Amino acid sequence: MFSIDLNSDLGESFGAYKIGKDNEVIPLISSANVACGFHAGDPNVMSKTVALCKNNGIAIGAHPGFQDLQGFGRRNMNVSPDEVKAMIIYQVGALDAFCKAAGAKLSHVKPHGALYNMAAKDERLARAICEGVYEFDSSLILLGLSGSLMLREAEKIGLRCAAEVFADRAYEDDGTLVARTKPGAMITDEDKAVERVIKMIKEHKVETISGKTIELCPHSVCVHGDSEKAVVFTQKIRDSLNAEGIEIKPLEQLVERR
Amino acid sequence: MFSIDLNSDLGESFGAYKIGKDNEVIPLISSANVACGFHAGDPNVMSKTVALCKNNGIAIGAHPGFQDLQGFGRRNMNVSPDEVKAMIIYQVGALDAFCKAAGAKLSHVKPHGALYNMAAKDERLARAICEGVYEFDSSLILLGLSGSLMLREAEKIGLRCAAEVFADRAYEDDGTLVARTKPGAMITDEDKAVERVIKMIKEHKVETISGKTIELCPHSVCVHGDSEKAVVFTQKIRDSLNAEGIEIKPLEQLVERR
Amino acid sequence: MFSIDLNSDLGESFGAYKIGKDNEVIPLISSANVACGFHAGDPNVMSKTVALCKNNGIAIGAHPGFQDLQGFGRRNMNVSPDEVKAMIIYQVGALDAFCKAAGAKLSHVKPHGALYNMAAKDERLARAICEGVYEFDSSLILLGLSGSLMLREAEKIGLRCAAEVFADRAYEDDGTLVARTKPGAMITDEDKAVERVIKMIKEHKVETISGKTIELCPHSVCVHGDSEKAVVFTQKIRDSLNAEGIEIKPLEQLVERR
Amino acid sequence: MFSIDLNSDLGESFGAYKIGKDNEVIPLISSANVACGFHAGDPNVMSKTVALCKNNGIAIGAHPGFQDLQGFGRRNMNVSPDEVKAMIIYQVGALDAFCKAAGAKLSHVKPHGALYNMAAKDERLARAICEGVYEFDSSLILLGLSGSLMLREAEKIGLRCAAEVFADRAYEDDGTLVARTKPGAMITDEDKAVERVIKMIKEHKVETISGKTIELCPHSVCVHGDSEKAVVFTQKIRDSLNAEGIEIKPLEQLVERR
Repeated sequence: MFSIDLNSDLGESFGAYKIGKDNEVIPLISSANVACGFHAGDPNVMSKTVALCKNNGIAIGAHPGFQDLQGFGRRNMNVSPDEVKAMIIYQVGALDAFCKAAGAKLSHVKPHGALYNMAAKDERLARAICEGVYEFDSSLILLGLSGSLMLREAEKIGLRCAAEVFADRAYEDDGTLVARTKPGAMITDEDKAVERVIKMIKEHKVETISGKTIELCPHSVCVHGDSEKAVVFTQKIRDSLNAEGIEIKPLEQLVERR
Repeated sequence: MFSIDLNSDLGESFGAYKIGKDNEVIPLISSANVACGFHAGDPNVMSKTVALCKNNGIAIGAHPGFQDLQGFGRRNMNVSPDEVKAMIIYQVGALDAFCKAAGAKLSHVKPHGALYNMAAKDERLARAICEGVYEFDSSLILLGLSGSLMLREAEKIGLRCAAEVFADRAYEDDGTLVARTKPGAMITDEDKAVERVIKMIKEHKVETISGKTIELCPHSVCVHGDSEKAVVFTQKIRDSLNAEGIEIKPLEQLVERR
Repeated sequence: MFSIDLNSDLGESFGAYKIGKDNEVIPLISSANVACGFHAGDPNVMSKTVALCKNNGIAIGAHPGFQDLQGFGRRNMNVSPDEVKAMIIYQVGALDAFCKAAGAKLSHVKPHGALYNMAAKDERLARAICEGVYEFDSSLILLGLSGSLMLREAEKIGLRCAAEVFADRAYEDDGTLVARTKPGAMITDEDKAVERVIKMIKEHKVETISGKTIELCPHSVCVHGDSEKAVVFTQKIRDSLNAEGIEIKPLEQLVERR
Repeated sequence: MFSIDLNSDLGESFGAYKIGKDNEVIPLISSANVACGFHAGDPNVMSKTVALCKNNGIAIGAHPGFQDLQGFGRRNMNVSPDEVKAMIIYQVGALDAFCKAAGAKLSHVKPHGALYNMAAKDERLARAICEGVYEFDSSLILLGLSGSLMLREAEKIGLRCAAEVFADRAYEDDGTLVARTKPGAMITDEDKAVERVIKMIKEHKVETISGKTIELCPHSVCVHGDSEKAVVFTQKIRDSLNAEGIEIKPLEQLVERR
């Protein structure tokens, strides 16, 4: 029996600004990555998003990012490992507080945007993220790019980790994502994207942009809820998983307890 | 045997900006109220301040305020109770995370500046603060103005609370502080200030600005460390308490467990 | 021949966050109030919005507000007149710079949200706003609530001013707007709203919430573009003005030169 | 007769946070670079700093930086040329507004920190900065690192520019500054530093860290006022310039009019 987690970035609204169809995507997924007020989200949004996730029975994760609301946390910043560790502890703690107040349990942490991308390649930043999470709560799961340096750092210090894959993104031969600026970076054919996801889950294989086949071992598929089209595609992935007999489960049930 | 807590607001530096002689005042006090990144402080400063408090064996409290760095949290803002509750949970959770990461225990919460003053008079805001603290961690102590409406709200919902008094501020007949804009608001004679503190602790009495004597029952005296003069005055208060045989203890030892 | 200006608040997007149907409302109005990066807007949005207004030949005004992005500038803040004056100069100067860079001329200033409301009643804040605008550029027009204290302050110091009225808001007997929290504050019947606007322009009269008729002398009608419904209503107002032979003109053509 | 400008970064305080001995350094210099509220400074500080400069008769320049108060604008950020151009126009316009309100004339623009360093090496960012300044006001002077790519871009588009040199920094053979992380980056011997400045001004030569002599042609020397020691050193430089018969003049008198 195969099983997989479906995760999505939620709670990205800020004040009067609304982003994301959280209400529509929540029933389709098993794990939410909730923005923590630095690159998106604010305390009111966090409170409501945690309540929404809890009421729908999905796992709640923290989605910390750079303190760059204007750039939505997508602009690389030259930060030190100490700064990264502190910003992780701060944001994860803030989101965990809303979980505690709501009687829910924080499940995982997935870094956002530029922080996620930089930590996939920079050992010192990756280590700083993992240490921040571990020192705050060593039972949390770190969710990151399949095969990334960040997941290796998590394993080194004894932090549980989970690998995520993308349905709509092409892969390089080394398992990294093809940069969005390159042609062919996005898998736009929805049927092909679904087929790739099924193969990644059942066979642990994906074809790279060069045509080579590489191995990966996904715990979770990242899906989007920022547009009507994205929600429909997420529904399609979910339906296909069901049709293939692949069970959708939160990370806690897919990653071993230590 | 009399005993009292000495508390001070710390960790108010931000990035390249330094405020407060934290290193000098920490050895003189028993409880620190650490800024949480909204009106002052940042994740790096919070991390260092928590470590400093822990190493010096003083109790660590959260000092949440309005998200108004330019106004240092001292400008009243027209916020709803829901917003206040969320900003309390967020900030207290963030500071608690640094305590957890450092192996320390968060002891108390003292609202800052305009939030403190508004909550001393507005029942709905006071209630929102108390609920935020209680829902996050019902074992925390709320530190607030002696006799204030905020402490009454804390008691109503079963949150432990502690009353603070000021050595350098004059009192109105109703127990509130004389507004800084009024003449006589500040007690500038240091000897008189120390004498008042001793009387408040030993006799639970203070003379108001009108000459009347009122009762109050302090758990803590608020002292300052923002200037050399303030540190010297804090040392003077500490010496006088010692000379009077008044023991200096953190709040946890002064407030009953529930 | 009657004439009137139609103004709308634009450029309120921020980073990845989109608000307002600027492209749809711009062809319908004669004056834009462009957010200046404090309560809404950012430098990129300001640059694009100014270009859009210029290309469509509508007048460009600055729309300064409190530095409270989370509250969208709608939360009252306890600021001093000096602070208000400085925040006006800063924001108006920033927007004017985009006008200069685009070869356009800044036409007017309309304070936003809580700042607008507070200045309608607080003489010192109103004065500070007017002084800030006047000292920066004494040829600008201040756009404010018809009959408000802010417009009187503008006149006192020799700043040109223009009075705006609202199609969708009820008026108190003293000419102020009925607070949104009161029943009947919003005029929801679109035909009635349009009829009121025509009467305000042609007869300088409006019926208050108590049934009394008061006088006002509008230079501009404030319309909205934040929803599809709002855009349709704005089109309806425009059509009715045309049908009534009321010409739509920017403020500069309605307010006398000094 | 030799002449040179002395420039210093001022107005870097923010709200309750004070940085820099502006009052002490202003009488010693001929040009101030005033922070514009993004990496440092706020509208109140800008207003006061402009008044202080005007009253002391020194030239006022804008000192725009990244919107990163926590990092004091010293952390590289991955921004696009369009974003840079917009942030330049915004900040320069805001500072210019305080000059206009005070009856003063903005003289120059000097980018700050990470923006300054990135633009010294990145042609597209350098171009974006120059275009922003030029489109806002083509009569302004761009002040940048002597020999830098940023000054070449300024010349290309017809923007007047001025070259600054540093008394306390070592130079590489290509005229760039030795990175602070390398040994020997700082010239700590004050007498040697002064001697180097005199030689740069009179002979247009400086010895690099490798012992080679290179040419440069300085319009301005950057001095600091962030500590008592820095102020004393600035006084020493000023005294030496006087003793050598080198006149201290603002940039406007050193750079040709176009």
